[in-house]
Amino acid sequence: MWADEIRIIIEDRKHGASELAQYCLTLLAKQAQTSPATSCSELITHLNLLANQFKEVRPSMAPIQNLVARWQFRLFSLPQNEIEDLRLEIVTLTQQLQQQSRQAVTAIAHQVVDLVGPNATIMTHSLSATITATFKVLKNYNVNAIVTESRPLQEGYQLAKQLSEWGIKTTLITDAQIGLFVGKANAAVVGADTILGDGAIINKVGTQLLALAARYQNIPFYVASETFKRLPALAAQAHLEEKAPEELALVTLSKVTIRNIYFDITPSDLISAYITEQGVYYQSDKLPFFTVEA
Amino acid sequence: MWADEIRIIIEDRKHGASELAQYCLTLLAKQAQTSPATSCSELITHLNLLANQFKEVRPSMAPIQNLVARWQFRLFSLPQNEIEDLRLEIVTLTQQLQQQSRQAVTAIAHQVVDLVGPNATIMTHSLSATITATFKVLKNYNVNAIVTESRPLQEGYQLAKQLSEWGIKTTLITDAQIGLFVGKANAAVVGADTILGDGAIINKVGTQLLALAARYQNIPFYVASETFKRLPALAAQAHLEEKAPEELALVTLSKVTIRNIYFDITPSDLISAYITEQGVYYQSDKLPFFTVEA
Repeated sequence: MWADEIRIIIEDRKHGASELAQYCLTLLAKQAQTSPATSCSELITHLNLLANQFKEVRPSMAPIQNLVARWQFRLFSLPQNEIEDLRLEIVTLTQQLQQQSRQAVTAIAHQVVDLVGPNATIMTHSLSATITATFKVLKNYNVNAIVTESRPLQEGYQLAKQLSEWGIKTTLITDAQIGLFVGKANAAVVGADTILGDGAIINKVGTQLLALAARYQNIPFYVASETFKRLPALAAQAHLEEKAPEELALVTLSKVTIRNIYFDITPSDLISAYITEQGVYYQSDKLPFFTVEA
Repeated sequence: MWADEIRIIIEDRKHGASELAQYCLTLLAKQAQTSPATSCSELITHLNLLANQFKEVRPSMAPIQNLVARWQFRLFSLPQNEIEDLRLEIVTLTQQLQQQSRQAVTAIAHQVVDLVGPNATIMTHSLSATITATFKVLKNYNVNAIVTESRPLQEGYQLAKQLSEWGIKTTLITDAQIGLFVGKANAAVVGADTILGDGAIINKVGTQLLALAARYQNIPFYVASETFKRLPALAAQAHLEEKAPEELALVTLSKVTIRNIYFDITPSDLISAYITEQGVYYQSDKLPFFTVEA
């Protein structure tokens, strides 16, 4: 059921924005193969409607909106001759976009290596496909990691587990210890769920604290992010998703409201540079990169 | 056994520095009553040796050192006539010092009310006897509270429970949400385990992040603390105690070191004012207060 697929994406907590965006494309490609449409225009209309449904499912994750929009843009430019050919073309288009995204992540990882150099200690917060991919490259460069656990779901522990398997010496801390440890890092590097129009980023809650502590202790704070995570310059600030308070596993109290907002916003003035597949943009640069070809 | 009592203080995680300091005096008063000493000078020598043992038990907690030192100073000035009289005098002296400490906390609470006014929203971090006492006064002034949970032992949850019982509307958040919520408060107010010579404070880890976020969002950050928590101006920085990593309840990983440092240091430039029983001292003031009469 399509509604079930949508709900999986809404409720997912294990994947970053980039991975979920790719998963949306996978679902669309499957629909391209199984849609009951009988003509090319009917198929495109159907898929376009389905694609539109992804745009609001994760309001804090611009990549879903951007990657799906890019997919829609390409969809309309495909040759509409035979419906069976079109179905195959759509699968190919989807694979191309997904491959581009994977290549972008690898390109970013190498730029991080260039920027922080070998033998560095890198601090990060939460779990990001881009950061994981970066460490996969960095493991050959004798780096150490400092990783926050990222309450309540401990995504940071998952990252530490992966780093441990790769043999990267890692220090795992509670989120409250960010200020104690950032000074031991050569750089803080985080992913982003969304880059807002003004250059601020939406990322897992606590990212803003890491950026503040890094700035206070003169440690560079880098955002490693594919360009398609950026919203247009004039886009309004995205909604910050809140999850169930039960995730904190605390007994409820009569006069106490437990809050569990999942993302926070880190303003651009706290960001030393954006590391993208198109290059490194420093805080003073105007961010030129956009991805929605519309 | 005296060694057992010492260990209880070393391992205690439920009480702030001020409460533990008072508890040390209670133990000394008990010893005054039960000491096998047969002369006044023998009793004083014995108690003085026991008191000295408290000085290093909690290196991040200056109040223990300061309050015990104050007790020792008074001990030597007591009349040494009859040993049984002296035992009683020591009990009285102990009660006086403890009462002064309790009165100081109440005085501080009223100063906080004067500073933040009624109907305010106050954000705090961790659990502090001074902060709890402050909210006990503030509950009559229609204030709201924002409380961080304070991983790993969730002392903040204990505070929220107390506030709930007092009918104070409270928002409880994870430590990572500090940056999201500090802007909703009229002031951040924390206790201190120690005020260092340069005005920096040692307090539960995460306090520095609250101070950074408060400064970034122009929210005043107050330290509510008895003057006897201050170390002499030239005192070296205290050691930050580290607790067992098992408290984080995370499965160990081969290349991963789990750290659990219990305190952090918040530099004085992030502190808007110190609220003490002797008055309010602003950031620009030289801090005059000392308590060890030696």
